[in-house]
Amino acid sequence: MEILHQRILADGVVKEGNILKVDSFLNHQIDISLLNEIGREFYRLFGKENINKIITIESSGIAIAAIAAQYFNVPIVFAKKAASKNIDGEVYSSLIRSYTHGNDYTAILEKKFLGPNDRVLILDDFLATGKAQLGLLDIARQAGATVAGIGVVIEKGFQGGGDHLRDAGYNLKSLAIIDEMTPDGIVFRNEEATY
Amino acid sequence: MEILHQRILADGVVKEGNILKVDSFLNHQIDISLLNEIGREFYRLFGKENINKIITIESSGIAIAAIAAQYFNVPIVFAKKAASKNIDGEVYSSLIRSYTHGNDYTAILEKKFLGPNDRVLILDDFLATGKAQLGLLDIARQAGATVAGIGVVIEKGFQGGGDHLRDAGYNLKSLAIIDEMTPDGIVFRNEEATY
Repeated sequence: MEILHQRILADGVVKEGNILKVDSFLNHQIDISLLNEIGREFYRLFGKENINKIITIESSGIAIAAIAAQYFNVPIVFAKKAASKNIDGEVYSSLIRSYTHGNDYTAILEKKFLGPNDRVLILDDFLATGKAQLGLLDIARQAGATVAGIGVVIEKGFQGGGDHLRDAGYNLKSLAIIDEMTPDGIVFRNEEATY
Repeated sequence: MEILHQRILADGVVKEGNILKVDSFLNHQIDISLLNEIGREFYRLFGKENINKIITIESSGIAIAAIAAQYFNVPIVFAKKAASKNIDGEVYSSLIRSYTHGNDYTAILEKKFLGPNDRVLILDDFLATGKAQLGLLDIARQAGATVAGIGVVIEKGFQGGGDHLRDAGYNLKSLAIIDEMTPDGIVFRNEEATY
């Protein structure tokens, strides 16, 4: 997605430890006009998949899911990060390892909001090793829901999680895939190769 | 806001401890069509205030802020909940007591995203004792930003935080104010009295 590539090049900051900071437009301050373009692009990619619900994880996936949901005309459900002690039988839960923060957490989602009749689109801001997506896939599996697609704004291709999901047969589309990243520059994967 | 009142009466669940669960449409599963009506109403109430940024706190304020921001055509910034040990000199921070969860947390917001030239609208899903709003007001004060308004989807009027903010002179508008709440029923404050 060209305007996203350009925005990452203009405003993204590469930090040590394979961190890409895009907090000026995507996940702390958020450019809602850009998010509308992103939502429209997700609809172009997944609009024919008969999706009836978009799921994501708090916090940085929520704005993306909410804006995109307007194009699909469906509700969103966001999984919450919880301390294990809060979990009871009314929720699906999945343990997720957070790459960025180096700590584990449990994602929970109330059972009444996801079931076998749902065809879901999983959306998130980042995909690196894919742990967050695997957690949501695990929750969808527990619910008996069908995962019609996985949409990601920025995939760190060099960390392998995205290709692993593609190899497993998931319909994953990332709007920008970074194959190389140093403080001196960012190399995107050829866009035609990704869809 | 009549359709919000009706939705709270239809789908809200009153629990012990003054808890109103609206997680089927507002803060876990989210009805994006309703959120668009809410965003439009916030714009009707605050659209002439020359707002250039909407601020909120993760997580349940984010979708509301993102959808509303489309009407104002401004970016959003959401404060993050952080462990105190993560706080450095690059962020504004404010200690917030969480009524719902009974635990304290620190809200942080990067200094580069808020400053003296900003006229902000503070948005959130709930106002009870007003601690979250006071935290964001504190952060805006640290930044030297002007708070042009505070918008809340559901105010628990009987807990007093909203009237305290009005008495202090803030331009607070709540789309639904609950004056009484029991498992048997909910009494809303007269809408004309609130604007």
